[in-house]
Amino acid sequence: MRNILLTVQYDGTNYSGWQKQEGQITIQQTIEVALKEICGHEIELFASGRTDAGVHAYAQMANFTCECNIPSEKIAYAVNSKLPDDIKVIKSEEVNLGFHARFNAKRKTYLYKLYFSPQPLPLKERNYVRIQYDLDLNQIKRSARYFIGTHDFATFTTAVDMREKETTRTIYSVKIVKKPDNEVFIYVTGNGFLHNMVRIIVGTLLEVGRGKIRSRQIKQIIELKNRKSAGATAPAKGLHLLKVYY
Amino acid sequence: MRNILLTVQYDGTNYSGWQKQEGQITIQQTIEVALKEICGHEIELFASGRTDAGVHAYAQMANFTCECNIPSEKIAYAVNSKLPDDIKVIKSEEVNLGFHARFNAKRKTYLYKLYFSPQPLPLKERNYVRIQYDLDLNQIKRSARYFIGTHDFATFTTAVDMREKETTRTIYSVKIVKKPDNEVFIYVTGNGFLHNMVRIIVGTLLEVGRGKIRSRQIKQIIELKNRKSAGATAPAKGLHLLKVYY
Repeated sequence: MRNILLTVQYDGTNYSGWQKQEGQITIQQTIEVALKEICGHEIELFASGRTDAGVHAYAQMANFTCECNIPSEKIAYAVNSKLPDDIKVIKSEEVNLGFHARFNAKRKTYLYKLYFSPQPLPLKERNYVRIQYDLDLNQIKRSARYFIGTHDFATFTTAVDMREKETTRTIYSVKIVKKPDNEVFIYVTGNGFLHNMVRIIVGTLLEVGRGKIRSRQIKQIIELKNRKSAGATAPAKGLHLLKVYY
Repeated sequence: MRNILLTVQYDGTNYSGWQKQEGQITIQQTIEVALKEICGHEIELFASGRTDAGVHAYAQMANFTCECNIPSEKIAYAVNSKLPDDIKVIKSEEVNLGFHARFNAKRKTYLYKLYFSPQPLPLKERNYVRIQYDLDLNQIKRSARYFIGTHDFATFTTAVDMREKETTRTIYSVKIVKKPDNEVFIYVTGNGFLHNMVRIIVGTLLEVGRGKIRSRQIKQIIELKNRKSAGATAPAKGLHLLKVYY
């Protein structure tokens, strides 16, 4: 028995997110079906965390217990022959039996991609969110520092059915990078993220950039622990799980 | 009556190319249908040139005669509300009645996108071609200079039904640019291009990069005027019409 760790890249446009759900086409289910075909037995994948419908990943990490004889590093090639073009395993490797892609994750970096244009640009359609108004990037950068550190981020999560009990997380960095071609990339690194947390942080930064929220209000917005005090949840399609650190 | 020039961006993945064809979903037909809806009369678009099935455009240029009252610069907004996400008009402007997007075009630049990776990367799937072998970029750059100038490019075209009679074209530049993240961009600028010309040039440059063709053989390959002497036609999905110069 081996414990195999996969590095998975996907374009989430056509999927109902990572997590297996009855009657939905999800990334987890698609990979599990493909792995079952090549391994010959049922597979349960453990990912570093869920990604929502429409969210992408450069390098999602997921492990599973394998009883087949395919060399660990060849599993990527074998499973890719069964996977669709928008989900591929870019690396497969054997790890210690005790390793768990979620419990062992120390940090994660998400990347949110924005572009400015009066008209929508089809070549950025799937992986970016368009901004039609001017943004004050200096104000955004100034406000970003208030997120850094260990805070109760109850303001920055969507309570679904099951409310997350523990809402304290540590954010290590929020980087706003102006790119060529009227693009802005926002990188957020933390020890873990609540449901919709990065998207609500981005939505709030955009309100700061438009002058609707002042940068120094961020401290108070965090302290209020009230979802309504923050900006809108930015759309899923701009969000990418960039890297998981172990 | 006005002559309106459109700048059109599209992801060609889901289309049978630019040119209207019976029973096919094409980019020209899709835009003409949308323009008819907003202008209230039949529209015939004249593009700077066709693009093949699967080829993309950052800025295809196309003009049409318009009898409606929508202000020229507002046509982009109006037609975009009728267009799918993968085709959008990024600019609309009035031009002289004598202007023709094809006949007035002086130069065009195409961009071909490549990346190196042992596994396919879903986030590059639609707009890049993957290379799995090492390429000698210096050899490719050395060979690129042989394309520059006015030559009979009969070697570098696919004779379909109707053979192009005049196969002399001028290439102004072929630029090979190493990008971050294991990407290589190839820019080709010329006064006009034969059918499949850029894709056969790229396919031939790749053969040079792999050592199957020597860079100095390019001169002879051009002179042979024989399609079989060149490399394979590189896949459509890596090709982008980047800019048309007037």
